Amino acid sequence: MLASHICRSAAPVQASAALRSRVARESYLRKLARPADLVSNFKNGDYIGWSGRARHAAYFTGVGYPKETPLALAEHVEKNNLQGDLRFSLFVGASTGPEVEERWARNGMIERRFPHQVGKGIAKEINAGRLDFADTHLSKFPQDLQYGYYSLAKKGGDRTKPLDWAIVEATEVLEDGSIGASVGATPEILASADKIIIEVNTALPSFKGLHDIYTLADPPRRLPYLITHPADRIGLPSIQVDPERVVAIVETDKPDNTGNNAPENEDSKRIAAHLIHFLEEEVAAGRMPRNLHPLQSGIGNVANSIIGGLAESKFEQLQVWTEVVQDRFLPLIDSGRLSYASATSIRLSKDGFRRLYDDWDRYFDKLLLRPQQVANSPEIIRRLGVIAMNTPLEVDMYGHANSTCALGSRMLNGLGGSADFLRNAKLSVMHTPSARPSKTDPTGISCIVPFATHVDQTEHDLDVVVTEQGLADLRGLSPRQRALVIIDKCAHPDYKDQLLDYYNMALHECIKKGMAHEPHMLRNAFKMHCAFEERGTMKLDKWD
Amino acid sequence: MLASHICRSAAPVQASAALRSRVARESYLRKLARPADLVSNFKNGDYIGWSGRARHAAYFTGVGYPKETPLALAEHVEKNNLQGDLRFSLFVGASTGPEVEERWARNGMIERRFPHQVGKGIAKEINAGRLDFADTHLSKFPQDLQYGYYSLAKKGGDRTKPLDWAIVEATEVLEDGSIGASVGATPEILASADKIIIEVNTALPSFKGLHDIYTLADPPRRLPYLITHPADRIGLPSIQVDPERVVAIVETDKPDNTGNNAPENEDSKRIAAHLIHFLEEEVAAGRMPRNLHPLQSGIGNVANSIIGGLAESKFEQLQVWTEVVQDRFLPLIDSGRLSYASATSIRLSKDGFRRLYDDWDRYFDKLLLRPQQVANSPEIIRRLGVIAMNTPLEVDMYGHANSTCALGSRMLNGLGGSADFLRNAKLSVMHTPSARPSKTDPTGISCIVPFATHVDQTEHDLDVVVTEQGLADLRGLSPRQRALVIIDKCAHPDYKDQLLDYYNMALHECIKKGMAHEPHMLRNAFKMHCAFEERGTMKLDKWD
Repeated sequence: MLASHICRSAAPVQASAALRSRVARESYLRKLARPADLVSNFKNGDYIGWSGRARHAAYFTGVGYPKETPLALAEHVEKNNLQGDLRFSLFVGASTGPEVEERWARNGMIERRFPHQVGKGIAKEINAGRLDFADTHLSKFPQDLQYGYYSLAKKGGDRTKPLDWAIVEATEVLEDGSIGASVGATPEILASADKIIIEVNTALPSFKGLHDIYTLADPPRRLPYLITHPADRIGLPSIQVDPERVVAIVETDKPDNTGNNAPENEDSKRIAAHLIHFLEEEVAAGRMPRNLHPLQSGIGNVANSIIGGLAESKFEQLQVWTEVVQDRFLPLIDSGRLSYASATSIRLSKDGFRRLYDDWDRYFDKLLLRPQQVANSPEIIRRLGVIAMNTPLEVDMYGHANSTCALGSRMLNGLGGSADFLRNAKLSVMHTPSARPSKTDPTGISCIVPFATHVDQTEHDLDVVVTEQGLADLRGLSPRQRALVIIDKCAHPDYKDQLLDYYNMALHECIKKGMAHEPHMLRNAFKMHCAFEERGTMKLDKWD
Repeated sequence: MLASHICRSAAPVQASAALRSRVARESYLRKLARPADLVSNFKNGDYIGWSGRARHAAYFTGVGYPKETPLALAEHVEKNNLQGDLRFSLFVGASTGPEVEERWARNGMIERRFPHQVGKGIAKEINAGRLDFADTHLSKFPQDLQYGYYSLAKKGGDRTKPLDWAIVEATEVLEDGSIGASVGATPEILASADKIIIEVNTALPSFKGLHDIYTLADPPRRLPYLITHPADRIGLPSIQVDPERVVAIVETDKPDNTGNNAPENEDSKRIAAHLIHFLEEEVAAGRMPRNLHPLQSGIGNVANSIIGGLAESKFEQLQVWTEVVQDRFLPLIDSGRLSYASATSIRLSKDGFRRLYDDWDRYFDKLLLRPQQVANSPEIIRRLGVIAMNTPLEVDMYGHANSTCALGSRMLNGLGGSADFLRNAKLSVMHTPSARPSKTDPTGISCIVPFATHVDQTEHDLDVVVTEQGLADLRGLSPRQRALVIIDKCAHPDYKDQLLDYYNMALHECIKKGMAHEPHMLRNAFKMHCAFEERGTMKLDKWD
């Protein structure tokens, strides 16, 4: 099937004035279609890429994901009882909106999913064993997609594009057919797809001027990223599209389903205070310049407290090199302390978007959007000396962290870019409350454990662990030294003795056996987790 | 104390003709000293950096480590019964020669050690809990040293250099005071040291012409590495030294203590054959060029079999981007199949060195030595699309690998550069025998386990696992899919059913609990390891 030939309704579709004002490419307007008319072109087993991009936190959702075509497909499945019979491999730079993706998941429309997701409905399918999901480094996903690593088993094999379809949302189409949109992995998804559907969203404002779209060649033809400052531009102002592969455009005015900000609390503010104090000491010791290094900050209440705390700090001329621009950055710009922020997408609340557009001239030249392959590039993160700050599920006493799988098995959202940043940062920070409530115990879950039940960040990757209890500086310490500092500074008082007992017992046994570099009692390494599963709390009576 | 003023014997030392022929800097010759005369300048608690560099394999030792001064210090301690009273923090790019370092370890002269080591004596001290050792990525160690991350607790604190001493071996000294030597982290160790001792080895041939020494600035002044091919040169032809900090030079003619090559066997050849067949298929599928991508290869018998197998393959114009040039590369150059090799050190057997120098003109323009910060740089590894191949202690069924700690606790050598390469390679391969003998059972140790007892490489970092049994291609697979493929293709037949039982039981339980993304039974995750500790074999009667 030629890309330009797909089945569609004979009835013509009229482009609205709003749509015409967004689409400068005349040939695309001739491909305007109703979403429902496109569904018959999708076949069971198709590989589909969507635009969309956000970070892992269950209460946040993606920005710039397609809505009309996926919803039409879901309706098609529901009306015709095709649940389980029309299944796709779904690829998104990161995550999308739950109202779309969860409906697909519920309908059994997702067979495989990469490399990140958000929303209870899809996590349920993954953890029920019905949906094959794999997460990976967000910097690696786009290149591995283009290498064909995700389509090794695809029908037609090596002779076809890795994806059958790209369905992307755009806020505008330029005359050369290129688009403005949230970025993420959209450039590589478009380049990997046989057929392209562009959903033009006339309700979202255009991000015109914010883009720097660099296309990385495959080895052996790759060149260095010539970026030495978050503001450096090395690419094009819009995302390239092969016009001949565009089979349809669709008009939409549906907004993104973005949640509100995670509320800060006393703990998150205490964590932020510890961390900002630590950064001040690093500057005083001469290990960092007075304006720090570019900051990477996740999403969630601790991240919000940190960014909020920086707005009230003495630091000036701060820079941001991160994945997502979120609400708290706007007051940081207003405070005059943030000079520039580079990211791969903008995720703002409704209020945040209003603020951005009301004061566009103030914010415009301080923000830049890049492909996630660039934003999360180990090369640039290490070059810039980024300060990386992320939240784990749990950290163990030797400095390994679990970012993804509760009890080693239950997937939450995925790795995201955490390991891209934490391994390559000049300063790698994980921040977490010291304990979380279980159903029966307000401190039933210790976030400091003897052995992480899933390791996403290794002991070789973390410099600092911080909880509301305090900050553990792990730099230059051996595993045994790290354990004592982490327990002392970071563990919740309810767990300090218990963790120390594990350490001392393990040390005693391992010295006897001549294996005390990183002392463990393997028979008890997960005993706290087993206790939690059995009794709803990680508190133990005794270790043996 | 001024760097140029140290205590030394009044008796003058005569430079030999051999030494004069190696030292073009006249002022250094005036600082010629007897090693024994220098020992009184070393104080308990001093931070000392050595040159030296090799990869982790117990039967191999470093190249270019200092010998005279460390041995004089060891004798000083032994003669004066200072064991435990003269202790140092010791920093080496990677590992050194056991005859020097083990003697220090036995004498209790090493308090702290970073970031890699080889030799039973030092491992014994580490695992006895008497020596604080921490390993890290070899690409990160030099920068973290320069940032001051290893000297946070140093006397004098932030106002001094991170190291009190650098003791480095050189094969020649140029007129500007710079040196030729094995590279590793020597440039950064020299730049970090208050006082420098250069041991000029007149027995080793000079590596003149092989060096490309690039000095990386600290953030925010870093620039891209302008390297797009292993042969690209971006730096200087020798290692810079601040002549004013050179307090002494010492003459030596002691050779490096390098072992012989690990003997290949049927298993290593079978692993190599699986892998070369896989690479041929990648080329046929168009996912790699006909000359592959630059190869990183570790040390050991599997690595030798792979390089040997490539010499007999159809591949041509191969390139190498790796850490250590080893013996097997020479016949690969002779075969005409290897066009260029970049590394950070050369580790050859006596026969290998003879071969290199007898045919210097043939090899000279095909080899290049760089700082380990460059050789192991994530930036360049990802840009070149390196094929990384390393040996783990164990791999788990979901694709996490343990490179460092037996039974989670007993340190062998350290991480080395394995994670620099495996995370950033275009193709990440771990190769291991499927099982190893224990004292009582020829297949008592399965190298495929349910849960790695120490995670250095995560499931997000490996593409291929290969044993003598077969090759598991993990690309694009979910954890559940990976488990079935790894067990099927890679596990030893003695363990296949047992591993499959674990997987099926874990899957069954986790589906019931709604957490079946990466199914585990935490209570049994390390049961095979516990059985090995108790009974000398990982073979179980039953799981529960």
